[in-house]
Amino acid sequence: MSGMRGEFALIDELLKSLAKGFPGALGLTDDAALVDVPDGQSLVIAKDAIVAGVHFFKDDPADAVAQKLLRVNLSDLAAMGASPLAYLTVIARPRELADAWLEGFARGLAQDQLRYGLSLIGGDIVSTPGPLLLSCTILGLVERGRALTRSAARPGDVIWVSGTLGDAALGLRVIKGLAVTEDEAFYLIERYRRPEPRLALGQRLRGLAHAAIDVSDGLLADLGHILEESGVKGRIEIERLPISSVAHGLPGWLEAALGGGDDYELLFTAPETATAAIEDLAAELGLRLSAIGRIDAGCGLEVVDASGAPVTVEGHGWRHF
Amino acid sequence: MSGMRGEFALIDELLKSLAKGFPGALGLTDDAALVDVPDGQSLVIAKDAIVAGVHFFKDDPADAVAQKLLRVNLSDLAAMGASPLAYLTVIARPRELADAWLEGFARGLAQDQLRYGLSLIGGDIVSTPGPLLLSCTILGLVERGRALTRSAARPGDVIWVSGTLGDAALGLRVIKGLAVTEDEAFYLIERYRRPEPRLALGQRLRGLAHAAIDVSDGLLADLGHILEESGVKGRIEIERLPISSVAHGLPGWLEAALGGGDDYELLFTAPETATAAIEDLAAELGLRLSAIGRIDAGCGLEVVDASGAPVTVEGHGWRHF
Repeated sequence: MSGMRGEFALIDELLKSLAKGFPGALGLTDDAALVDVPDGQSLVIAKDAIVAGVHFFKDDPADAVAQKLLRVNLSDLAAMGASPLAYLTVIARPRELADAWLEGFARGLAQDQLRYGLSLIGGDIVSTPGPLLLSCTILGLVERGRALTRSAARPGDVIWVSGTLGDAALGLRVIKGLAVTEDEAFYLIERYRRPEPRLALGQRLRGLAHAAIDVSDGLLADLGHILEESGVKGRIEIERLPISSVAHGLPGWLEAALGGGDDYELLFTAPETATAAIEDLAAELGLRLSAIGRIDAGCGLEVVDASGAPVTVEGHGWRHF
Repeated sequence: MSGMRGEFALIDELLKSLAKGFPGALGLTDDAALVDVPDGQSLVIAKDAIVAGVHFFKDDPADAVAQKLLRVNLSDLAAMGASPLAYLTVIARPRELADAWLEGFARGLAQDQLRYGLSLIGGDIVSTPGPLLLSCTILGLVERGRALTRSAARPGDVIWVSGTLGDAALGLRVIKGLAVTEDEAFYLIERYRRPEPRLALGQRLRGLAHAAIDVSDGLLADLGHILEESGVKGRIEIERLPISSVAHGLPGWLEAALGGGDDYELLFTAPETATAAIEDLAAELGLRLSAIGRIDAGCGLEVVDASGAPVTVEGHGWRHF
């Protein structure tokens, strides 16, 4: 059933051109694709889906939707310390979807293929009476036994996060009507629509960091995943959270930083002995890396303010204890 | 984004139990899964999707839907001569879908995991306002450089097909109201709902067959794919088509055999020198393998009757020339 079948000649041609760089894609004309994994490497694989009206807006630019689909998946590779290799896609197409939309979608994929160095190698196109649904399966490579995981945090680790937090959630609110300046709107909406997967960072963190995850559900939720899978306790200091100058002070900025999600920054833990190397890495990559807290023995997540006083965080909000 | 996230605790637990046999699935708790490919093997990967009301009926048994989803993908592996390894799945779930349906779905997956020897290793669960959509990405292994493809048919090859043709399409017509006996209905509907991927056959055909494909679109369409990708001409003899005793004589049986699709039998070409070995293989596997025609130089597809007279086939129908 694979390859790109049948009735959809336009998209079929659009997609075939995306597979030219990968011989094992067999031109998207066969039942499946062939992927060679070099000796000593593991394949890293993730799959997800986005639905129009749920995960993106019907009138979002098609190229941005394509890029978000790819980048969200690339971010999963980044969180494992892997390099991108290839991807497959399912397009569940409602009858009313315009060809021009699909052309924009393919253009967005083509741009990001060049940007991140990967090729389309297969998938499926189906009709649906429901909304447009797009699914991506991404493949990457990582040295065998060296993937970063969520379960490797240890007591004494410093908790780090890349970039800034909360921009994407504020960008979503801007799309929904939050009033900001034009420049602020552009910055925040781009952060929401076109997250930057931290691939170089993830790859460089192998051997340096213990646990890693990408911030997709929100800082607290994703840190919670690390704590739960690692069986440890975490404590973060609100004043250390990296907030962009645009986000800082906007209504709901702190809630966005703590619970907003969609930033696709890397959240990772590393032993204190790695701090100097991580600071050097930040300078080398030109990417802000902020120490925001600490892992301890025990369980649960504590959020504290400047004075060290606990702050209670409930759902997406928070209040002083 | 991978692993099985968040809100759907029930299905989350149901699916995690399907990942227990595969350490690289990381319990479905991480951003991605890790797959080691043994030296000398290639990974074979295919992805597709099915939509309620389009590819299956809303009231189809959930376990049968799960099994068709997996088997259709396993059939892609069979057509490449690959062995099953693992799969990922996306479930786009409408709000009204009952938990009991998902339990049945997971039960169907569990049964087929045992039957075919593979594990769930990741995926995504999302909400949709549209119909239930299920997507599967399947992974298999094949000796490097030995995968069967659609493009390797050569003039002089014999065209073979496994099993019988047309049962699945007739099963679909029975579901839609075609009157048959109870036993006939059971046989035909099962053939439609639970196709048998010809994995052992595909693996044994490596080195014996030239080109291969699975019959999903219909014999003529799928043979057309081989002819097109191989740049050769095909000729099949209607009297040689393998038809089950149940299907034979039912209204539309020949159209079903030629154009019906959904049988997921293997269609392959092999040099005449392989004929004895293929007949031995049929006996060994207890699987009917029928020589139904021949590959020649040129292009196009010719269908002939018992007397060798050409028959014109248009769409899903046919008539004497």
